[in-house]
Amino acid sequence: MDLHGDFHVYDTTLRDGAQQEGLNLTVADKLNIARHLDGLGVGYIEGGWPGANPKDTEFFRRAREELHLTHARLTAFGATRRAGVAAADDPLVAALRESGAGVVTLVAKSHDRHVELALRTTLEENLAMVRDTVSHLRAEGQQVFLDAEHFFDGYRANRDYALEVLRTAFEAGAEVAALCDTNGGMLPGWVSDVVHDVVESTGGRVGIHAHNDSGCAVANSLAAIDAGASHVQGCINGYGERTGNADLVTVVANLELKLGRQVLPQGLLREATRVAHAVADVTNFPPASRQPYVGSSAFAHKAGLHASAIKVDPDLYQHMDPGGVGNDMRLLVSDMAGRASIELKGRELGFDLSGDKELVTRVTDRVKQLEARGYTFEAADASFELLLVEEVEGARPSYFEVESWRVITETLTHAVPGEEAVSEATVKLKAQDVRYVVTGEGNGPVNALDSALRAAIGQAYPGVAKFELIDYKVRILDQGHGTDAITRVLIETSDGESSWVTVGVGANVIEASWGALVDGLTYGLRRQGA
Amino acid sequence: MDLHGDFHVYDTTLRDGAQQEGLNLTVADKLNIARHLDGLGVGYIEGGWPGANPKDTEFFRRAREELHLTHARLTAFGATRRAGVAAADDPLVAALRESGAGVVTLVAKSHDRHVELALRTTLEENLAMVRDTVSHLRAEGQQVFLDAEHFFDGYRANRDYALEVLRTAFEAGAEVAALCDTNGGMLPGWVSDVVHDVVESTGGRVGIHAHNDSGCAVANSLAAIDAGASHVQGCINGYGERTGNADLVTVVANLELKLGRQVLPQGLLREATRVAHAVADVTNFPPASRQPYVGSSAFAHKAGLHASAIKVDPDLYQHMDPGGVGNDMRLLVSDMAGRASIELKGRELGFDLSGDKELVTRVTDRVKQLEARGYTFEAADASFELLLVEEVEGARPSYFEVESWRVITETLTHAVPGEEAVSEATVKLKAQDVRYVVTGEGNGPVNALDSALRAAIGQAYPGVAKFELIDYKVRILDQGHGTDAITRVLIETSDGESSWVTVGVGANVIEASWGALVDGLTYGLRRQGA
Repeated sequence: MDLHGDFHVYDTTLRDGAQQEGLNLTVADKLNIARHLDGLGVGYIEGGWPGANPKDTEFFRRAREELHLTHARLTAFGATRRAGVAAADDPLVAALRESGAGVVTLVAKSHDRHVELALRTTLEENLAMVRDTVSHLRAEGQQVFLDAEHFFDGYRANRDYALEVLRTAFEAGAEVAALCDTNGGMLPGWVSDVVHDVVESTGGRVGIHAHNDSGCAVANSLAAIDAGASHVQGCINGYGERTGNADLVTVVANLELKLGRQVLPQGLLREATRVAHAVADVTNFPPASRQPYVGSSAFAHKAGLHASAIKVDPDLYQHMDPGGVGNDMRLLVSDMAGRASIELKGRELGFDLSGDKELVTRVTDRVKQLEARGYTFEAADASFELLLVEEVEGARPSYFEVESWRVITETLTHAVPGEEAVSEATVKLKAQDVRYVVTGEGNGPVNALDSALRAAIGQAYPGVAKFELIDYKVRILDQGHGTDAITRVLIETSDGESSWVTVGVGANVIEASWGALVDGLTYGLRRQGA
Repeated sequence: MDLHGDFHVYDTTLRDGAQQEGLNLTVADKLNIARHLDGLGVGYIEGGWPGANPKDTEFFRRAREELHLTHARLTAFGATRRAGVAAADDPLVAALRESGAGVVTLVAKSHDRHVELALRTTLEENLAMVRDTVSHLRAEGQQVFLDAEHFFDGYRANRDYALEVLRTAFEAGAEVAALCDTNGGMLPGWVSDVVHDVVESTGGRVGIHAHNDSGCAVANSLAAIDAGASHVQGCINGYGERTGNADLVTVVANLELKLGRQVLPQGLLREATRVAHAVADVTNFPPASRQPYVGSSAFAHKAGLHASAIKVDPDLYQHMDPGGVGNDMRLLVSDMAGRASIELKGRELGFDLSGDKELVTRVTDRVKQLEARGYTFEAADASFELLLVEEVEGARPSYFEVESWRVITETLTHAVPGEEAVSEATVKLKAQDVRYVVTGEGNGPVNALDSALRAAIGQAYPGVAKFELIDYKVRILDQGHGTDAITRVLIETSDGESSWVTVGVGANVIEASWGALVDGLTYGLRRQGA
């Protein structure tokens, strides 16, 4: 299929997505993300604004040598020439020309008030700026798209002028005019009406660039496409300023899987979950579990009612096959669940429980009892697996025997305000018939316990050196009782390749943490075949 | 306006929202959330499924005594009677009847395959189950809504049967039939077509219950309303199974602010941001910063092009006035933002800061510094007031001088599994020129510290005996760094008449807790005029 023909999937993560609060990409990050986007098969990757900031200039310089794209065309973003300057003489236009990008996306004002108040020039001069810049870049051999900023608000304020900006760009050689809902306040019906009118009035090729301020970025993009737009802009994971841009994966998955329009190369939509999570690793924003299609919860089922029906036919409770976007169905073990989901969960973990009704009952009862005491297994697969092993094999895997532990947290005498408290833990345990008494320090009591415990066990099982505690979550379960409440701790442990989550519960937060730590190490040791 | 008349805003956070992965609400949490939802002015609050699980039964029992709703009607969710049993004899129907809720929402199958495969009964018997259960509950004096499960998929599979289920419910006395997109795969155009047909074919009152699996839950809800639905279901913060339910605040804000339909009591939409964040505090899910309307980034603008234009006219870069949902425009990457809100907050606490620009700048700067370190003052009024007092009076109120503290948590030697750990804290401090060295015990380290601290100070200030720590919340701020992360603790202290919240932050959870404890006692003593 032709990614640069009838329909354009245009990613702006590296430019508009990077406007997101807290998101800060290095040049290496941008190159890395561009490779992932190319692996998803998007047609265009907007790399940034060369000339406007040194990082983006550097990105385009390095991209020429280091970025070898299979599917996508790299696109440079920039503004029309300044008022009163020839396009050829504007240094920012020169930066676009010299970026090495085959495609330039020019942002232009299409809202009369913005021209006057923000750009501080005349409506006529703004048209000339569009005309000159598009013509100049076309003459220099670049493909040109127009981003019509604030188009929808501008159309409302002054339809004739907004359309005139588009016509000017088309006449000068722009291939696409992307209508930008810059403030993100549109609703699908409004977008549909405007796009219909623009397509009819200008006869040009229209694109859509939506933001999610009304929670309708995806629907607005689809409405525009339905009304005739054939170029859609968005960002991976819906990154972007304020509430973000349209989530490109959701838009594309809806187009391919629901509306039967193939817009990515065959088979590449199956990379979507992997790519979305890989980009999240680069940006260091935790992936949103509820994200449509690619979220870790997107095909997770909790209710007992659902679980028993899913055994009959997964299609009854899923809007599509999760494999279509490279995601998976997951069953959550929870107090709402019954035997059916325990059985399914067992299968997922490699235990066939279907032949042993008594065992399933025993496991279900224990899960219910433990959940009534505050445990949760839906997030703590590793603790659930240990429980299963215990019931299946008759005993919990045990690699060490704890005698006692103690942790002290204190300030120094005459502590000055702001001076940090220190924690010190001592653990006494037996492993492989040797008794260990080890003390560890940390910047908190759990950190200290973790370091003492791992130091002790690591002497008997050197594989423990690989383990690292990578996430720690505390939840007070019974609010309204202050520090008397039951505390639940979830701990995520990694061995560098994969990670697992364990749970601990107790009236004492340290004791709850201890339980989760011990489970985490036990699970890891079992996996290593200790 | 009549919340129970022409248009229903129906919240299902406590039932369908609670299906979200990782969300686990206690009865106290549910009561708390119900109060917040009532403060937003929703018409109906679905409380859960009495009879189906003990927690929900308990919720309805306690709600009768403890929940005093101003706007909302409490609604019980449940299923139609079982096949082959009279409605009056079905114990689950009895639980609905006896729940004390004036409104019952009955879930019914409307998809033929689900009736046969999941419910394992005949299409005829399913209609009888709908008819009997609705009639029975109506005869017992309850208002009845129908949740038509999998309606949209069912309509596609067998339109006649799906419509027949609705007609049966209407004839038996159901007031509303909410069409559920249970699998969440619909797109707005499809929803619109189906709702148009249902309204025309049945003549009954139609509602919409949308999930976000295609990223279109909000748009689907609006499409249904545009096509004639007059009852909308959703969850606060878009909580819910898989990708979540329609975000009720986004739907309502679009209706009120963009489509000119008032659906909440006058002025209450301005509570939306506060309520959304307060509920997030209860669920302990960090609020999504990019959430439409109420997210902390929803009206945040990065410096540069936008910021300077915003000075000219904020409307140029915002789709609406953020005040309409109780949110704020933010130009900087800082939380509590502007001087204006500090001034306002000061006035709220009884300090007139308007005359002293330098003071306001000083307070604003300190808040920004502290928030950058992880503090939050939104929920911790008492800590903010102490900070204000310090800046206004030149010194922080001080009633005691801490020399040092220490807390030990340990298991007994040869602890048996499940045996509880014990905590013991020693605090050394001076109050009113007397030095106290006091040791306290507790079932956790913070509990022990709290008891030692209050025992020591109580000797100098007997009023402290009234104080009680009634709530304790921990949040790990920097995920991905395990126990190294920064921890924020919020503590609520009560004097029996009112309560106040203080905040502490630190790499060490015990240290963070200590900061909040000291603030809590200091604030209480100042209030007593010590």
